[in-house]
Amino acid sequence: MITHHTCQLPRRSRGYYLITDEILDLLPSLPESGLLNLFIKHTSAGITINENADPSVRVDFESYFNHIVPERMPFITHDMEGPDDMPAHIKAALVGSSVSIPINQGRLMLGTWQGIYLCEFRNHPHARQVIASIYS
Amino acid sequence: MITHHTCQLPRRSRGYYLITDEILDLLPSLPESGLLNLFIKHTSAGITINENADPSVRVDFESYFNHIVPERMPFITHDMEGPDDMPAHIKAALVGSSVSIPINQGRLMLGTWQGIYLCEFRNHPHARQVIASIYS
Amino acid sequence: MITHHTCQLPRRSRGYYLITDEILDLLPSLPESGLLNLFIKHTSAGITINENADPSVRVDFESYFNHIVPERMPFITHDMEGPDDMPAHIKAALVGSSVSIPINQGRLMLGTWQGIYLCEFRNHPHARQVIASIYS
Repeated sequence: MITHHTCQLPRRSRGYYLITDEILDLLPSLPESGLLNLFIKHTSAGITINENADPSVRVDFESYFNHIVPERMPFITHDMEGPDDMPAHIKAALVGSSVSIPINQGRLMLGTWQGIYLCEFRNHPHARQVIASIYS
Repeated sequence: MITHHTCQLPRRSRGYYLITDEILDLLPSLPESGLLNLFIKHTSAGITINENADPSVRVDFESYFNHIVPERMPFITHDMEGPDDMPAHIKAALVGSSVSIPINQGRLMLGTWQGIYLCEFRNHPHARQVIASIYS
Repeated sequence: MITHHTCQLPRRSRGYYLITDEILDLLPSLPESGLLNLFIKHTSAGITINENADPSVRVDFESYFNHIVPERMPFITHDMEGPDDMPAHIKAALVGSSVSIPINQGRLMLGTWQGIYLCEFRNHPHARQVIASIYS
């Protein structure tokens, strides 16, 4: 059995955000056993899993991805929406648009240090939709 | 319930291709509610989701990934199949080999601007197999 | 129906390891039709699918990811656990923490040249847990 839940996330500006609790608060009780798939319906934001304790990790993510995908690379042609647009699409491809997390005893089977990241790649704040699909 | 469908994609040369409609044409009617997993059975091609409207995005993907994974990096040792081979394996790891998309009311729950990309990383045209697994 | 199996992987030092057979040996018989999701419960190791035949590919992966995510980048602030820690988190985001592989006739539907990689990004050997979720 699969049920889908549309999670409306508030407007956020560019950066990496820990949203584990925010997503769980938007969902019904998790099943005894199953799997959670999170799918972000956008191409200039991403969703991934990473370190959940030290905010400096998210700061370093911002610095690193800007380093590896800088704005105004000379070969970029898709620039109508501004210099942060095409880098956002590339970052989304690198980070990915979905994660799958097993569920056991009504809880996500995340490791001790794992949290769910929303990666907002546009400068201007955007509200984002994530589809949470629960298999049981 | 899970059903698998082997999608035979025609030979294509290096580049990024929007294959959303091509995949849907190869599948039976989608269920009322479920999930589609696409899995590419190759290690020098990838599958991802990105912008579906402006072809310049796919051109810029080609330029960017060639920039970040150029041919003939001095430390590469796996070069028997040519200079595009090991970069193709690395690009496949960066982009990924599968995507999961929720299904509702018999349709993929893609965002307005999202499409499915086949990423062909070899110069010589290759036919590729994608396994489409439908959960319902 | 979903069943979860916790796979305890032995301590390994930094590198890329082919673990297809090791994972299969830890699992019960696979179902006639289904899907296997592998999820690694760590943020400084990753799991992906790539070339299964030539060990030089794994050597080149190590060289490439060290090239693209070197230690001691000047903007890194999260360095309490050593210079290999934040690069490990970044590599994990690039490579991903889960893979989904279709199952048919009791076998993984991997391509001829595909194998499952454990990517250990820390210098010091770590034991890792992978949750194998089998849908049938």
